[in-house]
Order: sequence, then C-alpha cells, then structure tokens
Amino acid sequence: MINAGIIGATGYAGAELVRILSGHPNVKLSTITSRQYANKNFTEVYPAMTGSVDLVCEEYSLDTFVGNKVDVAFTALPHKLPMEFVPGLLDSGVKVVDLSADFRFKNVSTYEMYYQPHSAGDLIEKSVYGLCEVSFDDIKHTSLVGNPGCYPTSVLLPLIPLFKNRLIDLNSVIADSKSGVSGAGRSVSLATHFCEVNEGFKAYKVASHRHAPEMEEVLSEEAGEPIQLTFVPHLIPATRGMLTTIYASLEPNVKEEDIRGCINDYYSSSPFLRIFPENMLPDISYVRGTNYCDIGIKTEEKTGRLILVSAIDNLIKGAAGQAVQNMNIMMGLDETSGLIHTPFPV
Amino acid sequence: MINAGIIGATGYAGAELVRILSGHPNVKLSTITSRQYANKNFTEVYPAMTGSVDLVCEEYSLDTFVGNKVDVAFTALPHKLPMEFVPGLLDSGVKVVDLSADFRFKNVSTYEMYYQPHSAGDLIEKSVYGLCEVSFDDIKHTSLVGNPGCYPTSVLLPLIPLFKNRLIDLNSVIADSKSGVSGAGRSVSLATHFCEVNEGFKAYKVASHRHAPEMEEVLSEEAGEPIQLTFVPHLIPATRGMLTTIYASLEPNVKEEDIRGCINDYYSSSPFLRIFPENMLPDISYVRGTNYCDIGIKTEEKTGRLILVSAIDNLIKGAAGQAVQNMNIMMGLDETSGLIHTPFPV
Amino acid sequence: MINAGIIGATGYAGAELVRILSGHPNVKLSTITSRQYANKNFTEVYPAMTGSVDLVCEEYSLDTFVGNKVDVAFTALPHKLPMEFVPGLLDSGVKVVDLSADFRFKNVSTYEMYYQPHSAGDLIEKSVYGLCEVSFDDIKHTSLVGNPGCYPTSVLLPLIPLFKNRLIDLNSVIADSKSGVSGAGRSVSLATHFCEVNEGFKAYKVASHRHAPEMEEVLSEEAGEPIQLTFVPHLIPATRGMLTTIYASLEPNVKEEDIRGCINDYYSSSPFLRIFPENMLPDISYVRGTNYCDIGIKTEEKTGRLILVSAIDNLIKGAAGQAVQNMNIMMGLDETSGLIHTPFPV
Amino acid sequence: MINAGIIGATGYAGAELVRILSGHPNVKLSTITSRQYANKNFTEVYPAMTGSVDLVCEEYSLDTFVGNKVDVAFTALPHKLPMEFVPGLLDSGVKVVDLSADFRFKNVSTYEMYYQPHSAGDLIEKSVYGLCEVSFDDIKHTSLVGNPGCYPTSVLLPLIPLFKNRLIDLNSVIADSKSGVSGAGRSVSLATHFCEVNEGFKAYKVASHRHAPEMEEVLSEEAGEPIQLTFVPHLIPATRGMLTTIYASLEPNVKEEDIRGCINDYYSSSPFLRIFPENMLPDISYVRGTNYCDIGIKTEEKTGRLILVSAIDNLIKGAAGQAVQNMNIMMGLDETSGLIHTPFPV
Repeated sequence: MINAGIIGATGYAGAELVRILSGHPNVKLSTITSRQYANKNFTEVYPAMTGSVDLVCEEYSLDTFVGNKVDVAFTALPHKLPMEFVPGLLDSGVKVVDLSADFRFKNVSTYEMYYQPHSAGDLIEKSVYGLCEVSFDDIKHTSLVGNPGCYPTSVLLPLIPLFKNRLIDLNSVIADSKSGVSGAGRSVSLATHFCEVNEGFKAYKVASHRHAPEMEEVLSEEAGEPIQLTFVPHLIPATRGMLTTIYASLEPNVKEEDIRGCINDYYSSSPFLRIFPENMLPDISYVRGTNYCDIGIKTEEKTGRLILVSAIDNLIKGAAGQAVQNMNIMMGLDETSGLIHTPFPV
Repeated sequence: MINAGIIGATGYAGAELVRILSGHPNVKLSTITSRQYANKNFTEVYPAMTGSVDLVCEEYSLDTFVGNKVDVAFTALPHKLPMEFVPGLLDSGVKVVDLSADFRFKNVSTYEMYYQPHSAGDLIEKSVYGLCEVSFDDIKHTSLVGNPGCYPTSVLLPLIPLFKNRLIDLNSVIADSKSGVSGAGRSVSLATHFCEVNEGFKAYKVASHRHAPEMEEVLSEEAGEPIQLTFVPHLIPATRGMLTTIYASLEPNVKEEDIRGCINDYYSSSPFLRIFPENMLPDISYVRGTNYCDIGIKTEEKTGRLILVSAIDNLIKGAAGQAVQNMNIMMGLDETSGLIHTPFPV
Repeated sequence: MINAGIIGATGYAGAELVRILSGHPNVKLSTITSRQYANKNFTEVYPAMTGSVDLVCEEYSLDTFVGNKVDVAFTALPHKLPMEFVPGLLDSGVKVVDLSADFRFKNVSTYEMYYQPHSAGDLIEKSVYGLCEVSFDDIKHTSLVGNPGCYPTSVLLPLIPLFKNRLIDLNSVIADSKSGVSGAGRSVSLATHFCEVNEGFKAYKVASHRHAPEMEEVLSEEAGEPIQLTFVPHLIPATRGMLTTIYASLEPNVKEEDIRGCINDYYSSSPFLRIFPENMLPDISYVRGTNYCDIGIKTEEKTGRLILVSAIDNLIKGAAGQAVQNMNIMMGLDETSGLIHTPFPV
Repeated sequence: MINAGIIGATGYAGAELVRILSGHPNVKLSTITSRQYANKNFTEVYPAMTGSVDLVCEEYSLDTFVGNKVDVAFTALPHKLPMEFVPGLLDSGVKVVDLSADFRFKNVSTYEMYYQPHSAGDLIEKSVYGLCEVSFDDIKHTSLVGNPGCYPTSVLLPLIPLFKNRLIDLNSVIADSKSGVSGAGRSVSLATHFCEVNEGFKAYKVASHRHAPEMEEVLSEEAGEPIQLTFVPHLIPATRGMLTTIYASLEPNVKEEDIRGCINDYYSSSPFLRIFPENMLPDISYVRGTNYCDIGIKTEEKTGRLILVSAIDNLIKGAAGQAVQNMNIMMGLDETSGLIHTPFPV
C-alpha cells in the first residue's frame, strides 16, 4: 500500500482527493492537513463522508509527514504555499503532486510575471507538467508533478494532437470556456454567493486569466514557436463541470474525419478520453463525478473552421482525479486505479 | 457471480440499477429491457455511461430471461406491468425485486383501492416488503420483494423503532416530505419541464398521495392497530434527494435521549443508517449518490413534540440502492456489496 | 410626492426597497445609506439597476435625513442598529418602517430573551406590528411600524382568521416553512456558498428560530391566552420564495368550506391575498416578484386535520413589499401603490 | 388605446406578451388565442397572473380579430402557421408583429432552404426585420414586422455598428452563444426535462442552427457582400437569459476606445442599449426581466482580436419585449412604453 498525505484537505479539490484516495485500492490515506480546521474531524467539515473517512485535520508539519512515512504528498493549497513546503518534502524522499500553479511553468519568468516571485525556481526544471495522456513517460520518472489547471486541461487535451500534426492554423485558436462554480473554491465571497450566481451567467477575466499563459507555454513547446491564443472563461450556475468550445482555422484540405482520426489515434490507449463520433456532443452532465475528458468534433465547410467541444469535471479530471492519475503513474500503478466508477445517469 | 436482469432499464430508477449493478463485485448484469429504446445501445440513452456499460436494450420476454440464465430480475416499471411479468419469472425460478407498488401491500384490497385490480393477488402473501433494516430475515428467505416507495422509506425508517417501543402517540404523526424532481421519473410532462420547476417549490397531492396507505399499512402492523398519518409531499428544485420532516407527540416523560437511544439501538448493526448526534441535522447533499438514510432528532419541550428529519437519495435508498440491498440479502451476499463508495464533498 | 430614505440600502431587502420605491408613483427616493458601500454609486453594487437608479450610497447621519427633508425612513439593518437610529428619526418628525426585529415585539422582555437588551423600549408600545391586512387601522395612525419577519408573515396570514373564529385547536399548530436563500441576506458565509446550497435541502434552527416567539406573541394576543406552536424552517435551493405548510387539528364539525369561507371573508378586501379554490395549491413561482400571499386549503377527514399552504416572495411580501405597503397605509396612499405589476409567467 | 390581440398566447413568448401588454399604459389586450388551451381561462394555464389578467383563450379565427376591432396582432406561433394567418390579418387592416421566422428573411429562397416552402412570399418584401435600434424608421412605416430571433438579436446589436464602420474583419466573426432553457419553449420534451438540464451544460446544433442564416442575411446586407460567420449555441441551466461572446479580428490600428466609441455613438439615443465601460462585463442576471441589451467590450492586443459580450433576456429583448417595442414604434408611441421597470436586484 502506498502511504499518502494531503496538505490542504478541506478545500474542494482537497476534499475530492480525500474522497478518491479513501476509496483507492492501493492507497492508505494517513495524513491530512488544514489550517482552518486543524484538530477537527474531517467529517465535521464534510458530514457527507461520515462513515467513510475517519481522519483528523492537522496543521502542516514536515516532521509529521516524515514520521507518518508518507510516500506521496498532494499539495492542494493556494499558490505560493507549495513552493515553501515542496522542497522539504522532496528532500525527505516524499514524492509530490502539486495542484497549484507553482510547478506548472517551465519558464520561471513567465510564472513570476503572472503570479509572484518564485522561491524554489530550481525545482521547476525537475518538475513535470502532469497532463497524463501527453506526458506519461516523464511523469513515470519524476518525483514532482505540477498538476495542470482545470481550464488548461480542457483546452490542451483536444488541441495537442492537432498541434503535433499541424492540422490547424496554430495561431488561430480561440477557447471559450465555461466552468461550474466549484472552480472558484470553497472560500466565501460575494462572487460565489448563491443568489449572485444562481440564474446568472457571465464572462470574467476576459483575455486576462492566468491559465492562458499556462496553455500558451505548453502549446508553444508543442509547436516549437511562440503561440498565442484567446481565452475567455465563463461561469455556469452549476456546482461541477467545465465545457470548452474551441475555434480554429483548418489547414487547407483538412477534413472532419482527419481531425477525428488524429485525435482518436493519439488517445487510442488513453482510458479517460472519450472521443465522440459524428453528431454527438459532450455535456458536462456526462462527465460529472468522473475522470473522463469527452471531446466532440465538428468542422464548418463555409468558413473553414474547426469547432471542438471538450467536457471535464473540473474537480476531477481538472484537479483531484488527474492528480491521482499522476500519482498512479509515478508509483507504477495502473493509471486508472481508484478512478473508475460507473457514472450516474443524472 | 450472480446473473442479473433489469426489466425497464431506461427510466431513472432502472438506469440507476444499471449503474450500481455494472459496478457490483458479485453480479454480472446480462440482460436489460426497454420498450421505448428496444434494440438501442444503453449508452445511446445514457451517454454518460459510455465505456462502463456495454448492453443493448431488448423488448422483454420471459424466454430471454430464462435463456440467459438470469438468477434475479429487477422490475423497474410503472405499476400494473410487474403483476403481469412476475408470476412467470418466479415460476421459472427467477427471484424478483419489484420496484413498483404491485407487491408492496399485504392487503390486496388496499392496493386495489389506490391503484387498480390486482391480477396476481396470490403472490402478495409470498412477497416481502423490502425495508431492509426492518425485515432482514424475511427478505433472506423470500424470492419476491416489493421494494418500498421512496417516501415510505424516508418516513418508516425513523418511525419504526419508536412505534415498536411506543415512545410517541401513534396517531399523532405528520410527515412533511420534500423530494427532488427525479422522483417523478423520466417521462416528459409539463410538471417536470425545467422552467416550470426551477426556482419553484410547491406541495402536491396534499393528503392524497398513494404512498400514504403504504406507510399506514406498515405502521398499523407495527402498532397492532389501525394507524393514520398525515402525509404531504413537496417538490424540491433539485435532481436528487428526499428530506422528510416528521412531527409527533411524545409519550409522557420521553426525552430526546430516549428517542436517540431507541433509534440508535434499533439500527446498531445497520450500516446504511447514520443517526446524527445532538445539534446535527441531515441535508440531502450529504446522502447524494449514496444508499445512506440520515436521521436527525430534536424534541421540543414547550409543546411535547418530537421532530425527526430523515434524508435519503430518492433514486438510491429510495429505489435502486435499496433494491440491490434487497438482492444482496436474498442472495446471501453482504448487505453492502456494491453499495459502498465514499460520498462526494459537493 | 413623499420623500423617502433607506438606511441600509445594499442588502437584499434594502435593494428591493430601492427597486420598488424608484418605481413608486407617489415617492421620490432621495437618500440611501450603506456602511459597506459608502460613497459608491448604488449601481456599482447592483449593476442591474443602471439606468433606473441614480443615487450614491452615504454613511447614515440623522442630519442628512433631516436636511434632505425625508418624510419616511426605511431601516433595513441588522437587529440592534435600528434601536439606535429610530428615536432620533421619530423626534425629528420622520416616520419609520423598521424591517428588523427591534420594534416587532410588544413585550420587551420577550425581545430581550431572544435578541439582546433593548435601548429604546419605550418606543415599543408606540410601534405597530405591520401585518398590513390585520392591523390596517393601527398602521394608519402610527409613525413607527415594526415590519413583520418573512416567516411570521407566511404563518400568520393564513392562521389569524382561524384564530379569530376559533375554527382550529389553537395549540395544535405546526408550521413547516421553506425559504429561498435570499432570506439569509447578502453577507458572505459558507452557508450561502453556491456549492453548499445548490442541489441541497435541509432543515435548520429546528424548533429554535427567533421568528417562533414573534409568531407566538401575535397568536397569543389573538387568542387571549398563551399559544405555543412548533416551527421548523428549511432552505430551498432557489433565490426567492417562501412556502409554509401548516398543520392543525380542526375543531369538531368544521369543514373545508368553513375554513375557506372564513379566510375568504377575512381577506375579502385585501388585494394582495389570493385564496385558492379547492384543488389548487400555491407554488413560490406564482408569487415571485410580487407582493401577493397565496393560500391553499385542504382538510383531511381521516385525521381531522387542516393543512394550509401559503406562499410569498420572502423579499417582497416578506420584507420590502410589505414595508412599502405599510408606508402606503401610514401616508394615506392606496395600499397597492407602487406594488402592482403583472407577474412573470416563468 | 390600442386594441391588441395575441395568437398563441400560452407559449412562453406569448405569455410574456400577455404580461407586458396587460401592464401597457396605451394598450387594451382584448383577444388571445391558444389551440391547446382553447376555452380555458388564461390564469388556469398561468396561475401566477391571477388577479392581473382576466381573459379566456380562444381558437384563432380572423373573424374574431376583426369583430373585436383588433388594431395589432402578435403571432407567437411555431414557424409556418403565421404565413397562413398573416395575409388575412393584413388584408383586414390589422397590423402584425410576427415572432416566428416566417417574415424575417428578405430572401425567400434562404428561408425555404432552412425552413419550408413559403406560401406568402409576396409579403416578405413588405415586411421589415424588426431590430428596433437598427431599423427604427422602416418599422415606423410598415404594417408587418418579422420580429428577430433571440440569438440574432444578441449577435447583431453589438456587431452592426462595427460592420457599418468596418472596424473589424467582416468574415472573422465567431459567435459563441449561451441561452436559458425557456428559449426552447414550453412544449414538453426530454431535452427540457429538469433532470436532463439541471447541472448540465452543452453545445447543440453546432454550426447548424437556423439562426445563423438569419444573422448572415442581415450582416451581408450591412456589408454589401456575402458574410459568413460561425455560430455555436449552448444551453445554460437557468430559465431566462442569453449571453453571447463574439470574437472578431480588429482592422489594423483599431483600439478598444474606437470600438466603444463606435458602439456608444450608434446607440446614443437607444434607451435599451447599455454599453458598459472598461472592465465591466454583462451578466444575464443584470437584464433578467428587462428589455435591455447590455454590451461589454474588450480588445486583446497580443492577438489583435476583439471580444464582445452581449446579454439579453431571451424572452423579452429576444422575443416579447422587442415585439412590443416594434408595436410601439409602428403605432407612433414612445418606444419604451410599457417596457420600463426597475430591474430586480436578484
């Protein structure tokens, strides 16, 4: 059994990690931390899990993690905290999957432009960007994964095969994303007040969200040239789910079957990617509670444009599920371990 | 492995059975039927389950069930159809869990008063009312279970221990229930149109719902005298969940700790009953996606009344989950087999 | 034109007052205050009203109200603040409708038991409990109205005619109320976080909500004897609306038509009360955005119980609408002025 | 007073017309029809309007409209029916605002390609496309208005000023629209079942929705050349509201202030257009229940793209509200008559 710990277990991504790991056949979840709820039973914070989880939240200390013989730690914290904790964990032989942005960027200066000064910049070159289906081999051999953001996951998975095969105009990409409210986290704010969100729908951080440079760095590396895309996130009045509609110009003579073939081939051995046939389109309700990424494909002859629609559960494939998938790969387990359950009909 | 079949697999309760049984470690789901979607892949009807379920919906025929060597059949059909199909199944040695009202009543005339003439009345005395925590031993030895209605499950589980111990005035019970919309099934109607339900809340079938006589029959048997209760259902603008608030007059000198002790004792070995401590109350979100029944307890000194709050997922403990729990008991499996997963945090 | 001011204009009840008064044909809204948003345009806080409202939020000062020649002030503040501001306003000749609990109780000691010490207790005997349909004449002649709580409005309106005519057992009343989330106000808290409320439903403050003593004081006065009721509030995952289901034992030989006749007679000249005919029941969607209180009536022969269902918009008839109705009555205007609009179909 | 009639009054757009016209100061609503609810009181179908509307639904007959001396008729019917009824109405001197697609297209063959053969093609050249802010003068002098579709309204209003001034690449337009469920109408279908929509989000009719040719015809006429755009509609789990995010390439040297200036100028005398300042973005909740169209503007320097966000209430500015605005213009009334109310805060 792998001994796992979670730093920051009471936010939504952290709690989703608790849920997945407590049912994972190869994992013993031994240690969870929470500043806000230190010394409380986890089930006081999440009564739903009464009977399934029997853990007390602790204040974080490296000694506890080492003393408890934790093999792998998940950091589900706001940006900046992980760069403080991760070096010590790695030095003590604990592998880390970090769900913040701290170890996602290859280029420290890009990180520093959009976030803050980085105090563990040397670790960045050792870290692997954990888009599991794309970087499987690198993840297998690393001890530090920067778990991708939810929006980048939904944008990059459909695009990367097309970038690798240059089937679209690489600088024509527009990503119009829509996210459920849980993406904003559990902190209280007017922006997540029920009455302010319910029966509403809006765009926010138009062309200024910090997930855009994350996507651009990955796509630029795929392309071997600097890539820029337009990214606009929106807020869906629903708890979970993310749907991204991507627009791009097709390269000459590229047909819908070429696109579908390319994506199907690329993900032919990826159990969590469901590439939809013609005339079938994703819905966030199809992926709710799962680690799937569903992709729908449609070309428009009159304009020569491609339209891709991807759907994920923002808390699972967009956060905790992908983090566990990364752990599975790092620890040599089956990629799907602990992550396969039949989805709910509604 | 137990070989299972579902008659009526594409309604919400049927689809929930497909979900549970396809992940059940002791069951092979071999046969599913649907009149409306005969000859279609189940995943055309429920794309969410693509990759998890690979079954084609068939028209129902007894020969198919016998030919496929089905051990246990679930009938998730509108009232009246099961009484046509069940006799043949039982005669062929197939055990049955019926999710309709057809085999819930011990008294045929009560059934006929509220539903329609019964064509298989003789089977009624062989059938067991499948409230698992209450009738465990009878269920173990029967081949036909009448699976309880969702409202009766939420009302009877908290009340039965108190009836057995006569801690409340037996004719003082008022049950104010609130159900999610999935309880109305998947058939289209103005009453389930999104815009008619969303941001709405109403009572319906006030003091005239057919689940009231079902509750009264069970409570009357517990009491050894005719019991009448007031039952008012309401519609919550949410997909899943049922919360029932029960009011009753306490017998003299009965305290809150007596009530809590009584219910705790009665369910001390029931893994799906979570009896809440003082000052903690159920929320349908705590039981969503689970087979739990949560119960909260509060007494009011000034009026001498008891207030019980129970919560279930109407599609699981209120339908498909309890049906599988019944099958587990009938087939000698662990009661919880296939029914335990860590609940979602949100 | 009546010159009106609102103290506490940026909470939901305050903003609803802004909405109603800015469209009121006999009112000029000259002055609004907000501590949190002092010196901001109201439409920065509520962009929806851009083009309809052109007012800047101020810090409260009596001098401003007097200087602006405000005739009537609405205090939409947390409990305790109104008792500080109201004496000065009254002394300066400004009439007041207070939406807090500070001036609802006739009995200061009851208020002090459930809230806090009262610093303006002498004003309590001058204040009128502003249940418009019940206390029309007293409201007409007062300069201080304690505007009823939302729950009490939904409970008292259907009950008072029956108490006056003693058609029910006065101590048998159980009120099971369900409120939309806006009743919790605009302050941020985990309890109103979208993801914690959405797809949820729960009871809260069971038999311990401070609106119960408010109801009991009014009913006791109607009855001429101390009355106690059981009151349990619940939270609906919807923005607006309140539905209360009331249970009571009928006095001997009282029939459904007697109840309906009694309520119809009592409210025969009340334009905001809609008493439903047999077999028709309220839905919060019917009263959304309106000042109506809808009432449905059903008796149950087998138990001798009466079931009443009332529905209001908690922010309008349960707060701002009733407050404006009170102002209309105090100022000698038509009771409905500014409060009649055709309801939305959905 | 203008005498108005509605053909098809019980769908959502029809009922919204009833709501608006019953409160319109210059209109008497004398006649409403409904096949499905003929001979029923309108308030049996929409109990919310009890007390505000006192009309019986009739079967449609031209004689009734003429006999009732109807001045203007609104046809809120499925496509095809209006082309049967409208010629008779016009011949009898009744002006018509048609909410279907039958009289929106200038080019009959385009209509016939996307809908069906047109039996009143000669009327098409007399009809005016009723985008009020754009075709005010033509509307003033016509007796037949083809009321724009909801999606086209949300797409065309922000784009037309930019097309007129050629500030963007005319063939670069991508419109990603999101609509509330009421846009699908009141007919029952699995697609509008609460449980299928709630907590879901999907794209539908990707690049194949019939509103795209409607937009293209208008934009082509503005451009004086054939224009093609990419249009993808999505479904929001909310009752009302439509938000469209538009992407286009800026012409060289065009800045955000040029775009804002252009749109502001064009709509400087349009009371229902609210052009947002920098850093402020629309939300469907700001326009709910109103005839406003809100527009937000943002340019992205790195890609040279413009992002426009528009929001309307799909049932009002996207249907019934714009229809009444058209009637106001046709009948020489103030454009805003009956359409101005202070918006709700939540």
